[in-house]
Amino acid sequence: MKLKVYADRMSQPSRSVLIFCKVNGIDFEEIKVEISKREQLSPEFKEINPLKKLPAIVDGRFKLFESHAILAYLACAFPGVPDHWYPADLFRRAKIDSVLHWHHMNLRRGAATYVLNSILAPALGLPLNQQAAAGAENFLSTSLSTIENVWLKGNGRFLLGGFQPTIADLSLVCELTQLELLDEKDRNRFLGPYKKVQLWIESVRNATRPHFDEVHSVLYKAKGILQMQQRKRADSGTNSGVKNSLTSKM
Amino acid sequence: MKLKVYADRMSQPSRSVLIFCKVNGIDFEEIKVEISKREQLSPEFKEINPLKKLPAIVDGRFKLFESHAILAYLACAFPGVPDHWYPADLFRRAKIDSVLHWHHMNLRRGAATYVLNSILAPALGLPLNQQAAAGAENFLSTSLSTIENVWLKGNGRFLLGGFQPTIADLSLVCELTQLELLDEKDRNRFLGPYKKVQLWIESVRNATRPHFDEVHSVLYKAKGILQMQQRKRADSGTNSGVKNSLTSKM
Repeated sequence: MKLKVYADRMSQPSRSVLIFCKVNGIDFEEIKVEISKREQLSPEFKEINPLKKLPAIVDGRFKLFESHAILAYLACAFPGVPDHWYPADLFRRAKIDSVLHWHHMNLRRGAATYVLNSILAPALGLPLNQQAAAGAENFLSTSLSTIENVWLKGNGRFLLGGFQPTIADLSLVCELTQLELLDEKDRNRFLGPYKKVQLWIESVRNATRPHFDEVHSVLYKAKGILQMQQRKRADSGTNSGVKNSLTSKM
Repeated sequence: MKLKVYADRMSQPSRSVLIFCKVNGIDFEEIKVEISKREQLSPEFKEINPLKKLPAIVDGRFKLFESHAILAYLACAFPGVPDHWYPADLFRRAKIDSVLHWHHMNLRRGAATYVLNSILAPALGLPLNQQAAAGAENFLSTSLSTIENVWLKGNGRFLLGGFQPTIADLSLVCELTQLELLDEKDRNRFLGPYKKVQLWIESVRNATRPHFDEVHSVLYKAKGILQMQQRKRADSGTNSGVKNSLTSKM
């Protein structure tokens, strides 16, 4: 039975799992679960992941959620996956685990909270929260500085000085691509000071083409819609209509 | 050369690594880095962990931080560690990884933020923040409910229905023991509704005795001091003197 990947391409951890499967030629079925339609809260999906979060996989009788655990599992379970994604070498693997665990309370907390509360929330039927966005800015900037000055130290173009991408590169870059939803000035405010980070994002994109761009195309489309809605909201002072419009066009 | 563990027993991830080493008879040297004295910010410690966080290890020429990555590394690098802590079996390991990654943005975010902002901050020279504590309550309660109803489902007394503890059991329980710093009424408000969680904490404690109690003894001492200081603060309406007192008595 084919691997099933439950995903919403607007969710950054979902994107990392989809790109990983495609780049590595894993035969899988993508099952769309749309967060903007609250499909992840359905009783059917609760059977797959009782925590009602995306992504999740079903591999035969085995169910798994949390994207980093999924990526590590796929790298080990499918023999065709090149070793560089999640090396069997104990020391290299431990360093990748270190980045993956660091990610949650740093880059993810900063980027996801900022984007949700500064632009995305109305599309999910939630109010924007400028205070939460302001609180997340510090996490995001500090995390970018850590990536630039700690994780990207070394000779290679990838994290931990690597010459080929790992699951940590893919996860972190997919987290950062959500900054595409921000307007250019705001995105540059965050990414502008970090030249190595910018190069690294491009390196991961190049190493995983054409799948990277294909999986991200929904995000690029959503960007246009969100920014149009943001302008309308600024004109009229209301959030109405944003959710329906995004849901129907994505 | 002996494994070096840089730790502060008041830090819950530090405790999990120390207990793991002791329970598994790993020959190591504990190097105390006191957060209340800001020793983790020293140039010497920055050489060990550029992110200035605890715990960190040095194993020969290999340096590592992030407690979950350390626990996984130690379980694999020391052949005497029984398999149940982090099974070589792909499926069981993936499920443990799932819990370990879930932990950060859920239980840790809730418990650490609540305890810091409701009682611990003055001991670290920081102001209490009731608003941040209130925000963390929801994460903490929801996480406890997830542990009770999702992670503790199954036949065994441990997470994922296991009959023996894993590194996830140890990490999550060490996170929860910081609730000991709260007054009894507050602690019961969180833990009271979750009978399986209470039993599980005791099971992990019993499975790792006497090291569990020995490593936690600093926390139990600190509890008395913090609560005395809290009463004084309530009487006088000031935080002064709290930090020095805790630092000198711990």
